[in-house]
Amino acid sequence: MAQGFGFTVSGRDGRARTGEIHTPRGTIRTPAFMPVGTAATVKAMLPESVRATGADILLGNTYHLMLRPGAERIARLGGLHRFMNWQRPILTDSGGFQVMSLSGLRRLTEEGVTFASHIDGSKHLLSPERSMEIQRLLGSDIVMCFDECPALPATDAAVAKSMRLSMRWAQRSRDAFGDRRGHALFGIMQGGTNRELREESARALTDIGFDGYAVGGLAVGEGQEAMFSVLDYAPGFLPEDRPRYLMGVGKPDDIVGAVERGIDMMDCVLPSRSGRTGQAWTRRGQVNIKNARHQDDPRPLDESCTCPTCAGYSRAYLHHVFRAGEIISSMLLTWHNLHYFQELMQDLRVAIAEGRLGDFVARFRAEQAEGDIQAL
Amino acid sequence: MAQGFGFTVSGRDGRARTGEIHTPRGTIRTPAFMPVGTAATVKAMLPESVRATGADILLGNTYHLMLRPGAERIARLGGLHRFMNWQRPILTDSGGFQVMSLSGLRRLTEEGVTFASHIDGSKHLLSPERSMEIQRLLGSDIVMCFDECPALPATDAAVAKSMRLSMRWAQRSRDAFGDRRGHALFGIMQGGTNRELREESARALTDIGFDGYAVGGLAVGEGQEAMFSVLDYAPGFLPEDRPRYLMGVGKPDDIVGAVERGIDMMDCVLPSRSGRTGQAWTRRGQVNIKNARHQDDPRPLDESCTCPTCAGYSRAYLHHVFRAGEIISSMLLTWHNLHYFQELMQDLRVAIAEGRLGDFVARFRAEQAEGDIQAL
Repeated sequence: MAQGFGFTVSGRDGRARTGEIHTPRGTIRTPAFMPVGTAATVKAMLPESVRATGADILLGNTYHLMLRPGAERIARLGGLHRFMNWQRPILTDSGGFQVMSLSGLRRLTEEGVTFASHIDGSKHLLSPERSMEIQRLLGSDIVMCFDECPALPATDAAVAKSMRLSMRWAQRSRDAFGDRRGHALFGIMQGGTNRELREESARALTDIGFDGYAVGGLAVGEGQEAMFSVLDYAPGFLPEDRPRYLMGVGKPDDIVGAVERGIDMMDCVLPSRSGRTGQAWTRRGQVNIKNARHQDDPRPLDESCTCPTCAGYSRAYLHHVFRAGEIISSMLLTWHNLHYFQELMQDLRVAIAEGRLGDFVARFRAEQAEGDIQAL
Repeated sequence: MAQGFGFTVSGRDGRARTGEIHTPRGTIRTPAFMPVGTAATVKAMLPESVRATGADILLGNTYHLMLRPGAERIARLGGLHRFMNWQRPILTDSGGFQVMSLSGLRRLTEEGVTFASHIDGSKHLLSPERSMEIQRLLGSDIVMCFDECPALPATDAAVAKSMRLSMRWAQRSRDAFGDRRGHALFGIMQGGTNRELREESARALTDIGFDGYAVGGLAVGEGQEAMFSVLDYAPGFLPEDRPRYLMGVGKPDDIVGAVERGIDMMDCVLPSRSGRTGQAWTRRGQVNIKNARHQDDPRPLDESCTCPTCAGYSRAYLHHVFRAGEIISSMLLTWHNLHYFQELMQDLRVAIAEGRLGDFVARFRAEQAEGDIQAL
């Protein structure tokens, strides 16, 4: 691994594992959930509050930050950690996914992607070399290879062509990244839902050699069943001694299923985005705080939750401030959701360490199902 | 004063005074600035953060809370303090000002005001008796009389007619309030910019007898000079041994001028509203964070400020998150502004106690003027 980095697995249960990623900016307990700080902020949260929920690492988005405020600007201001007041590890994506989903007027070539900004229409290029440069300017601790991620469903031929381009870009990313003490580079496996393509992609990446490996190209519309099918074999193609990162996942039951299948890291906007739209995640399923049934309810979102939102506020209050369009609604629901996701990760880590993941997962599923029946 | 309440003046400098209002829910250091929590939240702030800025008391708006979520609902949920998770004192206005400025289809009679909600058009009545009932349901610590507040400029005849109606309503408010241990009732002086009417109003109120007295009907468009002219004499018409509250004020230099003239309490939405529109208040005047000149500026809003915003974030960051429409922009700017306002109050209290208010005010004005010249 990169100098200054380490990954130790301290416990296993079936294919699941728990351990720690050591970085110069702090330790990341795995399995880890990374809150997303797209534009240099986890929306509606102060960074110390994100940390208080139990987050060891944040994800930042290269695509958004290169467009506004600009990577060179952030570098002049001392890097992303200082800029956003978060001193622990940051993983940045490569921009490859967002450029295909958010930008306009895209043109994809062997060189990279030219595109128009979704903010002001200005023209930009993203390539493996430029993505590595931007992530270096940001000061990212864990840098992701520049890749292309096709939406599913797609034909095997289209998935194969895209995957092989991503593998050539992975080599160029590796070459451009070089050797930067204290900064790690992760490769991204592609190949859609095709086992042979996944294996080919894994081989290409491990031949290049990375500090960690992402399972990319999932959570893009294929559904949980197809995703789990891929996760039944794909992590096994990757080196045992490196972290495995499932990008863009997910709902709590996606997370649990991924961890069961050997995933060490995940990220998703879900807890923060849901918070802003009035959705709370709890041990007993989702609570839609918009619903009028909450308007006189003195109970917290979840009586077993220890977050500040559940300690201080009733569902009636949360319903009121959501309906009134008050900012505190986003603040409190996001905090609760991030707390819930981090508590789930901690529970998973402990269950794996104690060899009782199966029991934990069975109870998790039973509680979620009970919540769905009660229609909280 | 009401049982459980007390007001002690511990220091004087000219007409200015410093002291403490004692309430069952905590002590209010005076001169006090009350942040406004209109709809049961100081916008973009958690209540513990509001407290961390130095606030001893919040203001809640009867008009907003009666319409949404409703006073009876808040009472069933345990009162406003519990509802919004703020255990220190709360002052509620009477609804009289907002009903005249925000609602639709108003009809003013001797009985009170019927109006249509600005939220859903539903019809409501506010009267002295109903206002006292609502403020009792909310559990307000300091209750304001129901009054009418005419916009200025207005003819003396119109101001006199309105003031005398407010004085009849003050008596009805007093009668309806009764005697509630641990809860204080404040009268509101009216009379516009007319000295004789102010004196008549003060006499009517002191004849009824209240726990404190507000100077109402200012900061409604008359300008600072006219406001200070009234404050040159009006506080002197009120009892020395009761707190004097100037409603809806104001900018930092309004606050300083009011304190010089013997005011003990103020409230204003300015620090929180400005925070949401990208305006920061500092010792050296206002900073408009929207301005492109800040986009590369690594300095905090105010290098002499000790708030978390200035400790952790550059102007460049604040400019970025404001431009990106991120919620953290409102959170950080509001926190800074509330901190600045509370620090100003603390500086005023100490300056009065130490008999050097004149020096403090001279320096305050010089620093503000210097800031205006530098166009921060």
